[in-house]
Amino acid sequence: MKSINKTSVDTFVTEILNNNISYLSRAITLVESNNAKHQEKATRILEKCLPYTSNSIRIGITGVPGVGKSTFIESFGKYLTSIGKKVAVLAIDPSSSIQKGSILGDKTRMNMLALDNNAYIRPSPSGESLGGVARKTREAITLCEAAGFDIIIIETVGVGQSETTVHSMVDFFLLLKLANAGDELQGIKRGIIEMADTIVINKADGDAIKNAKLAKNEFSRALHLYPLKENGWTPKVTTCSALNNTGIEEIYKIIEEYISLTKKNGYFRSKRNKQNKGWLLETINNELKNQFYKDKEVQNALKIYLQKIENNEINPFKAAKEVLKIKY
Amino acid sequence: MKSINKTSVDTFVTEILNNNISYLSRAITLVESNNAKHQEKATRILEKCLPYTSNSIRIGITGVPGVGKSTFIESFGKYLTSIGKKVAVLAIDPSSSIQKGSILGDKTRMNMLALDNNAYIRPSPSGESLGGVARKTREAITLCEAAGFDIIIIETVGVGQSETTVHSMVDFFLLLKLANAGDELQGIKRGIIEMADTIVINKADGDAIKNAKLAKNEFSRALHLYPLKENGWTPKVTTCSALNNTGIEEIYKIIEEYISLTKKNGYFRSKRNKQNKGWLLETINNELKNQFYKDKEVQNALKIYLQKIENNEINPFKAAKEVLKIKY
Repeated sequence: MKSINKTSVDTFVTEILNNNISYLSRAITLVESNNAKHQEKATRILEKCLPYTSNSIRIGITGVPGVGKSTFIESFGKYLTSIGKKVAVLAIDPSSSIQKGSILGDKTRMNMLALDNNAYIRPSPSGESLGGVARKTREAITLCEAAGFDIIIIETVGVGQSETTVHSMVDFFLLLKLANAGDELQGIKRGIIEMADTIVINKADGDAIKNAKLAKNEFSRALHLYPLKENGWTPKVTTCSALNNTGIEEIYKIIEEYISLTKKNGYFRSKRNKQNKGWLLETINNELKNQFYKDKEVQNALKIYLQKIENNEINPFKAAKEVLKIKY
Repeated sequence: MKSINKTSVDTFVTEILNNNISYLSRAITLVESNNAKHQEKATRILEKCLPYTSNSIRIGITGVPGVGKSTFIESFGKYLTSIGKKVAVLAIDPSSSIQKGSILGDKTRMNMLALDNNAYIRPSPSGESLGGVARKTREAITLCEAAGFDIIIIETVGVGQSETTVHSMVDFFLLLKLANAGDELQGIKRGIIEMADTIVINKADGDAIKNAKLAKNEFSRALHLYPLKENGWTPKVTTCSALNNTGIEEIYKIIEEYISLTKKNGYFRSKRNKQNKGWLLETINNELKNQFYKDKEVQNALKIYLQKIENNEINPFKAAKEVLKIKY
């Protein structure tokens, strides 16, 4: 295989459309690169792939560390490939910016799924900017769709802004929980519950089955207190054991039911439209920065004013005004 | 009092420097407004206030819902005013974007502190963008400092990106936890622990004292596994009961110790410098968007292409290119 720089845009596109995973991986690397030439190439590949994106279903999966996301995605992914689906898993972890967090650190995750010819697993470092994550993950989704994957799973960690970001990219949002007898509702953010299209209580096996059922009832009651969603869907609560592969098929049935309902009532399309509008604005905002910072004069001024801030000679607000003067 | 629009910039500045809370509040409202005229006015007020920002200490406080943040801040804030400090509390809640989350919803929080003449409490809706939160919170900090507050508390919820945002704005980062016998370390993100300068086990009262002590030991052991921080500080673990006002004074002593150490070894200044550089870049990026989107031609093109996306006639990536063509 030629090096990433020597491979032509057309070769990339042809191979991606052929479901060639090595080329798909390298194209996503280009998408994620901060190198200007890589970005330019990624843009051209992306543009040529766009007409070929399929009718995929995009599923967001979230839950705090320890809830068993990897085991769940492995079990769920294996089920999906067993019924003939091609599954791509994109994992983003925006919550740990000082050192890379649990998703990337754990190299032993999803071993079985990784070996499956109809599955593709891609962890993505998020770096500093969630905006950047959203942009790059959207582009990675597009490339996976062009490569023929029909279920795209976006995995994220934590209880925070990352869920909002992922929610803005997917058709269906699945929240994984554990049964912690009694305090299910403590520590769960209202916003997250509102985003969830289904809550799955994982690790419903052995002694934990009883607690999982209690938790299921508690969540179901709690969800009933929320107003009906605009999509006409009542979020479902279910239990599973990813370890024992029980309850997995039911989860996919719930998702199929949701997709069928929202395609019928138009919500599926209108949500995608809304997401596409967000993508439009993000792409513009990103390009505004690219255009400004690639200017040599801006780069020099920035260097000078960053030094002045380092020396505590100017406040950042005034420094920004001075740098902006170059162009405006 | 004149309306917000009729009050002059100079009146705002004079009154803020006089510690006039009504004017401070209204200036923060201007900072948070999306109205172009309000923003322009806010910028002018901010610029004039910048030379008067004091030697404040900025403290970030985080913890999941249910950990008792409000009670803690009330107890901690009351202690600070009792030793002659002026305390401003800025609460941001970026984790709930569909409906406003717990911080803003709970109107009964911090009643006692709110009545204190030397305290100022300001909840801030975050809207969609964490970048926006960071910018506006930084500006609110600056205004509070100009108004003479010497302790600025930034409160946030959740385990996610919001902590990273707050961490980028404060001198000291305090993580509130509960003792949950046994599973203290499950569900806590490595990144959050790395950010924490102190971990405080709250609700160490009544029957919970024993568990709080166990949790304290467990966290202390865990923290010892981390490499020494670049600031030379070993994060401390302590317990308190915000309800009974016990352990509060000790927490402030830890913070004083930290500030004294990091001012001596230069880390305090270098961290502020780094934060100021981030602020410089954020201010520039924000202004790039303002300049672009205020253009009438851009606004018209955007309307057309958003409609095309709505009609599913164009992909967002191509649409962005078309809108950008107007200026580039």
